Amino acid sequence: MRPFVAITTGDPAGVGPEISLKAAASAEVSGAARPLLLGSGPVLQHYADLLKLPVRLRRIDSAADFQDGCVNYIPVNNLSPSDFETGKVSPLCGRAAYEYVEAGVRMALRGEVSAVATAPLNKEALHRAGLDFAGHTEMLAKLTGTKDYAMMLVAGNLRVVHVSTHVALRKACALVEKERVYKTVTLAAAAANSVGVRNPRIAVAGLNPHAGEGGLFGDEDMCEIAPAVEMARKEGCSVYGPLPPDTVFWKASRGEYDVVVAMYHDQGHIAVKMAGFERGVNVTVGLPIIRTSADHGTAFDIAGRGIASEKSMVEAIKLAAAMVKYAGREREAESAARRDQGDPGGA
Amino acid sequence: MRPFVAITTGDPAGVGPEISLKAAASAEVSGAARPLLLGSGPVLQHYADLLKLPVRLRRIDSAADFQDGCVNYIPVNNLSPSDFETGKVSPLCGRAAYEYVEAGVRMALRGEVSAVATAPLNKEALHRAGLDFAGHTEMLAKLTGTKDYAMMLVAGNLRVVHVSTHVALRKACALVEKERVYKTVTLAAAAANSVGVRNPRIAVAGLNPHAGEGGLFGDEDMCEIAPAVEMARKEGCSVYGPLPPDTVFWKASRGEYDVVVAMYHDQGHIAVKMAGFERGVNVTVGLPIIRTSADHGTAFDIAGRGIASEKSMVEAIKLAAAMVKYAGREREAESAARRDQGDPGGA
Repeated sequence: MRPFVAITTGDPAGVGPEISLKAAASAEVSGAARPLLLGSGPVLQHYADLLKLPVRLRRIDSAADFQDGCVNYIPVNNLSPSDFETGKVSPLCGRAAYEYVEAGVRMALRGEVSAVATAPLNKEALHRAGLDFAGHTEMLAKLTGTKDYAMMLVAGNLRVVHVSTHVALRKACALVEKERVYKTVTLAAAAANSVGVRNPRIAVAGLNPHAGEGGLFGDEDMCEIAPAVEMARKEGCSVYGPLPPDTVFWKASRGEYDVVVAMYHDQGHIAVKMAGFERGVNVTVGLPIIRTSADHGTAFDIAGRGIASEKSMVEAIKLAAAMVKYAGREREAESAARRDQGDPGGA
Repeated sequence: MRPFVAITTGDPAGVGPEISLKAAASAEVSGAARPLLLGSGPVLQHYADLLKLPVRLRRIDSAADFQDGCVNYIPVNNLSPSDFETGKVSPLCGRAAYEYVEAGVRMALRGEVSAVATAPLNKEALHRAGLDFAGHTEMLAKLTGTKDYAMMLVAGNLRVVHVSTHVALRKACALVEKERVYKTVTLAAAAANSVGVRNPRIAVAGLNPHAGEGGLFGDEDMCEIAPAVEMARKEGCSVYGPLPPDTVFWKASRGEYDVVVAMYHDQGHIAVKMAGFERGVNVTVGLPIIRTSADHGTAFDIAGRGIASEKSMVEAIKLAAAMVKYAGREREAESAARRDQGDPGGA
């Protein structure tokens, strides 16, 4: 059975409504999932008309009413296209984008949908609406009461989990310390599991050029990263590193490693963008719900023109649907193991 | 006329002799240049036999003796394959690799060859031979008495010049200061000219995630990089930035910019490796000679087995030959301009 995936349609002034509609109407998505848009009816209808969407936009009130052959949406915060200017930061849009995510999380926690795929929102718009989140991930952590979480970027074979993300590079250098790196390695293992890779081969990138070249260029590789890798290895992880940052992502993209632990934002993001700008997907790991996201922003510069690519959004929804299946398989394997041990816990 | 390009065959214990021979024997190279190998006769013969090279290896004493249809070499430091172990660091090999470069530079300075393309050497081997250079570039600067130079990485459309390279990342952050960034922008413009791009569109990457996001993640982007960009713009450069590091390399690889100024080693190297691991080429800019290099190391792990890819070396020789033509065209344009102005300086 194709799983229900809630699609939060993002900041209405950005490309979110457009790419959500295009993705939901695509054969690729409808073959893999039952996509359920959460957004403003008038805004979605505006884009359905603009795009001459080949299928009908259909309002429903719950997943039970889902119908194939149309794009189904549940109305949330029905602001109108005349309430805001496309391509501009607006507090109304920030508030609306937040409410879509809030509704998606609620549905996922209640089991009404199996996963959530999110279209981009705008941090400044959130901020102007009085919602101070650094981004989607922090918002989802708050809404689900999660403390230990991480984001994994996925582009084809390349999967990346970061030790730090939105901090100055000097600060990122200071955050490369043993415990934090170790914890990220374990999160990377869990992240790889969540997308169906069991016993992943985990590559840990160095911080400095050539992973420090034996201490010649900085000591973090030897003093912080190497011991963290050793800790994880002792616990049974297949983990390698610290490896020279300039080649490790290329090797992983060719299938030599299943996931790479990156030491800072751009180390991983440059590689992922180069590997496939339009097909990159974010996965948040550690949440009680399955959540994926398009790996790009609101693209205000091209919003409203019908030219935004939905590829990343399509990949995000497909990956969410695949993750639902992996999670089901994991649960089945676990209860089978319990039955084998005569443990009735799974019953 | 196809220009003479000296090929320094690199550390004899690495893949240098093998890729130099394969490249020189290739139709791609012989269509673009007259390649002249500088290396050990016995070592080159060993590899010619091992590889069953389809053309004869021929010893000559000067470029005047060059013959098409063979691989021509001039013997320098004729160490024998029995003098060292393939795939291992050795001071003898470090010394030999240095002498090949020394001979190539001498020939280029005298005008016996038009350019030099270098196969990889090993820093540790140099060090053990008592030759303390951080790498090829520093060696070439010393041998030619050059102070202001820079390295440009080239992989297809993507061209990158670095503000710093082989230093710890913390130090690299500190090196991002206005004057240094400005100087690198001007070197990047010269570098783009040297490979035939006139009036290049120069993209300057930021240092921090999202180029600092308005000072939220570090202030170097605003306080150091932006003023440097402004200085270069006032002098007539087409220069843009600081731009978000994670997307600027992708955009340049698609042709939106001609050259990118990267703030630190891995920022540029990750992008170039992802853009084309096997076809990357280094160009040293600012030297009185034309010099390119294969963009990889001695690969001791696969040396001696006949399986190393010569692609990067082929690209390096072809680019060297192309640069000879661009330089000639520049000189012609300059003397034409002088003639137009009635200035006999070019006569």
